[in-house]
Amino acid sequence: MRIAVLGTGPVGQAVAGTLAELGHDVTVGTRNVATAMARTNPDTFGNPPFPVWVEQHPEVGVATLADAAAAAELVVNATNGAGSIAALEAAGEEHLAGKVLIDIANPLDFSQGMPPSLLVSNTDSLAEQIQHRLPGTRVVKALNTINAYVMVDPKQLAGGDHTVFVSGNDPTAKTQVTELLRSFGWSDVIDLGDITTARGTEMYVSLWARIWAATQNPTFNIKVVR
Amino acid sequence: MRIAVLGTGPVGQAVAGTLAELGHDVTVGTRNVATAMARTNPDTFGNPPFPVWVEQHPEVGVATLADAAAAAELVVNATNGAGSIAALEAAGEEHLAGKVLIDIANPLDFSQGMPPSLLVSNTDSLAEQIQHRLPGTRVVKALNTINAYVMVDPKQLAGGDHTVFVSGNDPTAKTQVTELLRSFGWSDVIDLGDITTARGTEMYVSLWARIWAATQNPTFNIKVVR
Repeated sequence: MRIAVLGTGPVGQAVAGTLAELGHDVTVGTRNVATAMARTNPDTFGNPPFPVWVEQHPEVGVATLADAAAAAELVVNATNGAGSIAALEAAGEEHLAGKVLIDIANPLDFSQGMPPSLLVSNTDSLAEQIQHRLPGTRVVKALNTINAYVMVDPKQLAGGDHTVFVSGNDPTAKTQVTELLRSFGWSDVIDLGDITTARGTEMYVSLWARIWAATQNPTFNIKVVR
Repeated sequence: MRIAVLGTGPVGQAVAGTLAELGHDVTVGTRNVATAMARTNPDTFGNPPFPVWVEQHPEVGVATLADAAAAAELVVNATNGAGSIAALEAAGEEHLAGKVLIDIANPLDFSQGMPPSLLVSNTDSLAEQIQHRLPGTRVVKALNTINAYVMVDPKQLAGGDHTVFVSGNDPTAKTQVTELLRSFGWSDVIDLGDITTARGTEMYVSLWARIWAATQNPTFNIKVVR
């Protein structure tokens, strides 16, 4: 499948790299290709700069948000939550229309320090704002409840015996995303319902951040025991 | 231990009954004893009215919020989240001073229908509001992430192989609450940190409600797999 992964950070890199390994035709979309390819400093997490990752992944293309989205059959939003709406507008509503958009972003607000609060929550969510802004796109919220490394390799943790969630208005889109998640190694995928249920997974990030702080370990996930 | 359980609903009943079974001297506190003992209709969940439960639990006392709190060494807030501050004010700041208060309530807002949203969240929490209102009380948030029946009998689910959390400013109080949780059968108790970490467990309730709706089963919990 031709897939655009919007965002050059750890989430974008992990998802793009894994999708390429799985045989998909992957392009990473970024606002300004020249700027992204000129980075020489490690990111805030200490990962190598984007151009180093690109060199290590010659099978992955790099393009503008608009070019990546236009060419894709399926699009992944791995941009910073605070900038996701602007990034998707730059990608172009017409380039996203009719397509499945996997929204991984969380609307994190770091302005008051750590742990972050949320820019939108409780009676709304980033996923709903994206769906509202892109009514012709089939938005599926997924993978926003774990860190980048668990997202693409769930089996590293208890052999994969833990849970991931999908939220969205289009059942066919959720089925397609669930199949993609299974190809990553996910076995327990709970369909929470329509896109408003993304409020649940986005608000869970508040607990996620505090479990991380308490255990000093970001490589964890929850299993819904039932 | 002499324990006051404030609240006559399913949570109060489950916790009070279990604490009494474990040998504690338990009194249920309610705003108006005569009113509570005059109830003849099942509650909204179909449970028998409070007087029937009282008759089945002759070892549990019933008293006003103030009398129950005054006599207790440890107090449990099992009141409706929307009315918790008022109930604790009725119990009396002086009767709660110096004591451990286990806060189980969630600030649920049912005014927009189901699933509920939260009356306070993101940059504040009910537990923090209670701690702020009762500065001399040692508030520990716990047990608000599961339903009443799982709270007091975690082993009914996967032999107890799942997680519960404590949040609070006083380490000794958290140790005492953790011991009480262990006496209920909890084995994995994560100390998230100070009382502000209750934002995490209260906001998780948004996901809890949607997992319940999706699975049609309230008897579940999360296990932190790490």
